[in-house]
Formats: sequence, structure tokens, C-alpha cells
Amino acid sequence: MQPQRDPCGLWLLLLSWFLLLFEVARTGRPVVSCPTTCLCASNILSCSKQQLTNIPHSLPSYTALLDLSHNNLTHLRAQWAPTRLTSLHSLLLSHNHLHFISSEAFTPTPNLRYLDLSSNQLRALDEFLFSELQALEVLLLYNNHIMAVDRGAFDNMVQLQKLYLSQNQISRFPLELVKEKAKLPKLTLLDLSSNKLSLLPLSDLQKLPAWVKNGLYLHNNPLSCNCDLYQLFSHWQYRQLSSVMDFQEDLYCLDSKKLYNVFNMSFLNCIEYKEHAWEAHLGEKLIIKCDTKQQGMTKVWVAPNNKQVLEEVTNSSVTVSEDGSLLFQKVKIDDEGVYTCYAVGETFNETLSVELKVHNFTLPGHHDTLNTAYTTLVGCILSVVLVLIYLYLTPCRCWCRGVEKPSSHQGDSLSSSMLSTTPNHDPMAGGDKDDGFDRRVAFLEPSGPGQGQNGKLKPGNTLPVPEAMGKGQRRMSDPESVSSVFSDTPIVV
Amino acid sequence: MQPQRDPCGLWLLLLSWFLLLFEVARTGRPVVSCPTTCLCASNILSCSKQQLTNIPHSLPSYTALLDLSHNNLTHLRAQWAPTRLTSLHSLLLSHNHLHFISSEAFTPTPNLRYLDLSSNQLRALDEFLFSELQALEVLLLYNNHIMAVDRGAFDNMVQLQKLYLSQNQISRFPLELVKEKAKLPKLTLLDLSSNKLSLLPLSDLQKLPAWVKNGLYLHNNPLSCNCDLYQLFSHWQYRQLSSVMDFQEDLYCLDSKKLYNVFNMSFLNCIEYKEHAWEAHLGEKLIIKCDTKQQGMTKVWVAPNNKQVLEEVTNSSVTVSEDGSLLFQKVKIDDEGVYTCYAVGETFNETLSVELKVHNFTLPGHHDTLNTAYTTLVGCILSVVLVLIYLYLTPCRCWCRGVEKPSSHQGDSLSSSMLSTTPNHDPMAGGDKDDGFDRRVAFLEPSGPGQGQNGKLKPGNTLPVPEAMGKGQRRMSDPESVSSVFSDTPIVV
Repeated sequence: MQPQRDPCGLWLLLLSWFLLLFEVARTGRPVVSCPTTCLCASNILSCSKQQLTNIPHSLPSYTALLDLSHNNLTHLRAQWAPTRLTSLHSLLLSHNHLHFISSEAFTPTPNLRYLDLSSNQLRALDEFLFSELQALEVLLLYNNHIMAVDRGAFDNMVQLQKLYLSQNQISRFPLELVKEKAKLPKLTLLDLSSNKLSLLPLSDLQKLPAWVKNGLYLHNNPLSCNCDLYQLFSHWQYRQLSSVMDFQEDLYCLDSKKLYNVFNMSFLNCIEYKEHAWEAHLGEKLIIKCDTKQQGMTKVWVAPNNKQVLEEVTNSSVTVSEDGSLLFQKVKIDDEGVYTCYAVGETFNETLSVELKVHNFTLPGHHDTLNTAYTTLVGCILSVVLVLIYLYLTPCRCWCRGVEKPSSHQGDSLSSSMLSTTPNHDPMAGGDKDDGFDRRVAFLEPSGPGQGQNGKLKPGNTLPVPEAMGKGQRRMSDPESVSSVFSDTPIVV
Repeated sequence: MQPQRDPCGLWLLLLSWFLLLFEVARTGRPVVSCPTTCLCASNILSCSKQQLTNIPHSLPSYTALLDLSHNNLTHLRAQWAPTRLTSLHSLLLSHNHLHFISSEAFTPTPNLRYLDLSSNQLRALDEFLFSELQALEVLLLYNNHIMAVDRGAFDNMVQLQKLYLSQNQISRFPLELVKEKAKLPKLTLLDLSSNKLSLLPLSDLQKLPAWVKNGLYLHNNPLSCNCDLYQLFSHWQYRQLSSVMDFQEDLYCLDSKKLYNVFNMSFLNCIEYKEHAWEAHLGEKLIIKCDTKQQGMTKVWVAPNNKQVLEEVTNSSVTVSEDGSLLFQKVKIDDEGVYTCYAVGETFNETLSVELKVHNFTLPGHHDTLNTAYTTLVGCILSVVLVLIYLYLTPCRCWCRGVEKPSSHQGDSLSSSMLSTTPNHDPMAGGDKDDGFDRRVAFLEPSGPGQGQNGKLKPGNTLPVPEAMGKGQRRMSDPESVSSVFSDTPIVV
């Protein structure tokens, strides 16, 4: 069919365009009124339940709330909004059939604070999908078919506070969302309930601050039953965290294809959870956090003597740091007792008690790694020094007697070997100085009842040294003694 | 039909109650799980489009958002929530058939911040209907059948910021919502568009701060056409207020059953709107507000000499007050010029220029009311004093001649009357002292060409006084002269 070339129609079109341009020029802004399929109340556009398959094209730039829920939308393309909707702060797209969202879909809406994409058919969250939404505070993605959450899907969402991912097919716990504070620094609610999570990074979760754990919903997932899981959730229960308290009947775990309540895994015989006291040693530096369920609370610590712990008090071993933590510069025995943190928040107050036990000795295990390294080094150096002393500064009594060369193939199984770091004194080699010395470094290869495993000697055994050694005979050192700290150090004969 | 008395069923009921109580006792909170008609994502309950005629009875106490939109609810009774929902911050009830809301309906939800009652069948908003909602920030009531808004309907809603009343049948402008700051101190958006408003309190509206007018939507109302209305909206247009700029095509007025655009009422020949300069007089105290479109902006004033006006500078006639207003203690002629206020807000910045004109004389009209009162009083006292002077201190030349008594019924129509405050000197009355004085106070009733209206004399006319008065003859005073400031003061003859 040929397109109609009615000059009158063309003129009318041109005239309408001219009038529109004139209007724009006159008022300074394009005249976009309420779309016919929507109900408009000043800056609210309600286009809910209108069987829309496409988003209305002409949306006023002043729109603050756009409700497109309960429609038949399938795609959210990059060009869905022809102009930038800088005033838009709420976009409701729930109860549609969305299965595609362009990575540029949110470019026109940089100031969005609330985005509802729940009850759609999304399958994956791609990298940088929401990265334009740097002002977004609440993101609803529950009741979709999401299986994969890209590690970069929520990058740059510095204002995000609540993320609902419930009722999807997620099987990997997105630890990066809660662990790396720089990624979502304000996230206080992450709903991962009713998904397919099996394994949780338990130790990482336990380290999270209480205000993150308080909003970390994990119920209705086929978690793997084990005692660490029980201990984790028992601690959360002890702390009265909402994520466990509100859904403790729905916290399941799976074992042998059977579901058990996490707090009712009697078949595992887990140890009953008990809140431990903080333990410290004399002179240790200690920081005890006031781990509240809410961020930004005002915190006051009260010491066991019922006096308030103050900030920056000189001549006091305990102070309160800027972030509200209790700070012991050097723990004393008097510091022992129950410390109470009173936290005052916007919506509720909280009281936390922490018991501190001080061991009456300085820390033995704290520098273990350091000690081992140092003692090994010291032992090694000492061995070398002893070798050198033995080689060069043997007592003068050796001068006075004739030295009988021991045969290297005698029945006492002493096989001599050269210590590479010492000068070569092998009489078989040329250039031997006739200074009356004959020194050997040898590895013992005992064959008698004193023989230990791997060529090491059992402590207390006496080496069968030739009689000619007389008083020069020495006992093998005990492995616990200083010279044998490092068991692989060669024994100097 | 007899109720079934199956003892087994009774036992089961008792057992279930016992189990429930046991569960409550064990966990410390009642076990209420997700209602079957809702989709639950941790603290969100979405029961939208479920053809519900009643709100689900068992709602978990942790519910934060409850979506009941697109259902068939007709009543919101006091007992709709069996327990207090203290965590509930958003309640969505739009697209139902609600025509009754109990005055106690919101008692269980004291922390509600967002309430959507749009697209229902509400007819009236009764007193104290929302007064329990002291934390509410947004209230959506558009697209109902509201005709009457009680003056106390929104009492105690100290946190309310946005109130949408669009698309109703409201005919009275609820001035109390915007005028009395104590009532809704945080209200920044009041949508009254698409109602039946005819008359607006124009002068009250003009006095409102710009941040209130910026969010006061009045389009699509059958307003009465007049030039004051044009001037009001022209000022709002000049200030680029959103309420006019976004809807200037929809700002109508009604005249002779015809709708006109407010900015296109040519038939009224209104004067073109022009922003006036501030006018002040020498020595006057003056406060110029930086009337921004947003509350709580940081304001900086720049004087005509391009220097910033500072707070509390000694030896300076102009300072900036705490609320960001420009304060002139005593206006000088040098203060004249254009002052610019740069306001920095959270979402946008604003620049306001104010021209100040200083008249080169001290204020004449400022104390008008006071002057009139004082001059009247002074004039009155002066008249009485003059009467007394005339009565008692007549110059001595009157002593030297015989006085001819004028007849009270002579043709010159001078009808004498006694001045009640002066001593009675009527010769007809007894006790007349023969002191040679004869004084009368008379109202003139001129009948000749010099006669004015209402017995008052036209200025410049000479009274026909008997010749015997000789040089004693006096001209009637001009009404503009000092002695006749108070026109009802009796004229002393």
C-alpha cells in the first residue's frame, strides 16, 4: 500500500509541529501532559493494571512516582523514557512479565530511590545492571527466576539500604555484598530467603557486624546441616537478631534429603550454644566493640564498678574510642568483670553486656609465630657459632695427646661428611695443613638399640665413641634443649 | 442444626491452642507466618490483586510493608489488625472500594510513614481521622469522592510532607493546612488539582512562603476568573514555581460558564504582571526574606557592591539574620540597589535577586493609623481648650460695648445649643451670674448661597453675622485647617 501523500495532512502535521515548537519556545519546557492510560495526580503517574505492553512514550519530566505495576510489560529497553526523568524517585514495575532489562535502562533515571521489579521473570542480574542507580535506597527483586547474580551487578550503589532477593533460584551466597564494605556501605537488609542456598560462608558471616546480620534473611533455604550452622544461628538467636527471631521456624537445613529445623538437629548432637566471655591476658591491648543491631547509635559504656567509661582519660587503662568501642591499652587483673554498653538509636535502644576474663599471666600464645621464627633463627646461628668454636677453639687438652684417627668405616657406624661452610680439612684432599688438628663434622647413623626414626636419635642415648676420646666423650643433646630447637639442624660431633 | 460436639475435635482444638501457647512461651513471641493469600519477602507482605474482601487476619508483627492494593475491600475497621503493627511503615490500600475508615483504624499502626488510599470511594475526611499517624510523611487520597475535609482531619500530623487530594469533589480550600504552620509544619506538597475549587483566599496564598507555594497544585479547578487570580499565578510563574510551571496549560478559570486559561483572560484586560522592587524610606527598619522554593537551604546574600553580606557585623547597617533574611537596621540612601541571594539546597540551587529602592525622606505613611488617632485627640482637646479660652478669657474690648443678644429664631438660622461640658450660662435658667458675659455655642444652619451639604459650610463662605459684631466677625474655618480636623467638632461661635 502506498503511503498517503495528502498535502493537506502534511501541512497539518507541520502546523502541529510548529505549534508545539512555539509552545516550547514560549514556556521554556515541552508540553507533555498526562498519558491517556494513566491517572495523574500532580507528580504521580499511576498506570497500574492497564494491560500495557509498552510503557507510555510521553512521560512528563516532572514525574516523581511512576506506577506501571500489574501490566504486561516484557522488556525494559534503553529508550523506554525518551527524556531524562530527573525527578523520578519511585518506579514500580512489579507484577509484569519482564525478562529483559537493558544495561542502559536506568540511564534516564539517575535519582531513583525506590525500584520495584518484584514478581517478574528476570533470570540473571548482569554486571553493572544497576550501576547507574547511585541514589537507589530500596531494590525489590523478589519472586523472579534469578539464578545468577553477577559479582558486579550492584556496583556503585552506594546508597542502597535494602535489597530483596527472596523467592528466586540463587544458589551462591553473594558474600561480596555484605563483606566488602566499600561496595554497599549502607546495606542494612539483604533478603535471600526462599532461594536455593546450600553452603554458607559461616566464618565470614559470623564476623559481620550485628547491624548487617540483623537484616540478613536466610530462612527457607536448603542449607547443609552441621553444627557450625547451628552455632551461627544460635548466636544470632542469643543476640535476638530479627533475621532469626522473626523466622526461626523457617530456618531449615537439609540432611539426607530430609529437612530439619536448624534449632532442632538432635541427630547431630551439637554442643549447646553458650555465649563466651572475652578472654585477655595481662598487659594485652584489647578492643571490645559495642556490636549493636543498628548503625549510628550513641553508645555509652559502663564499667563493672558502675562508673561510665569516658573518652580519652589520662591515667586510665580503659577508654572509649570514637566508634564507641571499649579500648584497653594494657589489660590489668582489675579490669575483669561485666561491661555494659547502652546504645541509643533512632528507633530503639539496646543494652549489651560483655564479660571480660583476665588471665593472671602475660600472653604465651600471642607471639607464637614470632617466637618460632626467632628461636629457629637464633638456634641456627648458635649452632653455626658452636661449630666454628669447636672447629677453631678446641680446648688445649687436645694439644697434649696424640690423636687417633677414627676409621670412617668402623662398626660404630659414624659416617663423616664435610660441613660445606667450614674450611676443607679432609686429609684425603691436598693442601692439608699439619697443625696437629683433625676435625670432622659427621651425621650419626646409629644401628643399635639407641636408633630412632628417620635417622634422628632418641633422647638420652649415648653415642659409642672410641675409648681414645676419653673425657672428650659427649652425650647427645635432648631434642627439647636449646641446641636442638630446630630438629633438622645437623648435629656437630 | 445442632453444633457438632465431637469431643475429639474439641481435644484437637485445645491441643493446638496449647501448642501455640507453648510456642509463644518458648520463643517469646507469637508464631504468625505468611498469610496464604500473600507473597512474603521477609518483612514485605504483598497481597495485591487477590480479590480480598477482608484483610488477612493473621499479620506478622514484623511486617514493614503491606500491599493490599487492587482488592475488593470496602471497610477499614478499628480491629482490622489484631495486634499492633509497630514495624509497619507503608500501607498500600489503593484500587479498592473503601468507603468507610474507622477513626481508630490507624491505632495499631503508629509508625506508618506512607499511606496510599488513592482510587477508592471515600466521601469525607472526618475529624481526627489521621491524628494517630504522627509519623506519616506521605498520604495519597487522590481519585476518591471526597467532598468535605474536616478542619481537624489532619491534626497532629506533624511529619506530613506530601498530601495528595487530587481528583476529588473538594470545593472549600483548606487554608488551615498551609496557613497555620503549627498544624502541618513540614508540608511541602498539597495537591488540590482536579477538584471543584472556585474561590481561593488569594491574599493569604500570596503571603505563603515560596516553598509552600511551589508544591501547591491548583490546576484543573473551576476557579473564578479575575485579575487578582491572574496576578497571583503570574507571580508564581515569574518565580518559576513548579505548581504553575508544570501545569500552566491546565490552570483554568471559569467565567460565564466558559473555561479560560488563567494566563489567557484577555477579556478582563488585566494589567501585565511586573515584579515590584522593595521600597523603603530613610531610617526605616527592613527585613527582606530569601524566599526560596525549598526549605532549609544555605543562603548567601551579595550586596550591590558585589560584597557578601555577613552575619552580625558591627558598624554595618545591613546584616544577615539566622534564618537567612537580609536585615537593614536603618535604611540609608546608599543601600539602594540589587541584592542577590544564592541558596544552596539538597536537590537544587537557587538564585534570587531583589531590587531595593530607597526614598530620600523619612517615612510619612508608616504611622498613619497612630497619627489619625493622635491628631483627632489633640484636635478635640484643642477645641475644648479654645472654647474655654473663649468663654473665660474673651479680650477686653468686649467689655467696652453693649452686647446685643441674637435671637435664637432669627432669619440667619443660627440655632444655638448648649455645650454640655461648659457651665450653664443660659439666661433662661436660674442662677445666672450677672458678670456681663453672654456666651453661646451654636451649630450653624446657613440657608443662603454659602450653605453646604448636611449643615456643613462650604469653605470660604462668610457667615452673615449681625453688624453689631463689627471687627469681631470671623470667617468660618476651612475644613482642612487644624481646628476642623475632626469634622464633627462643634463650631464655636
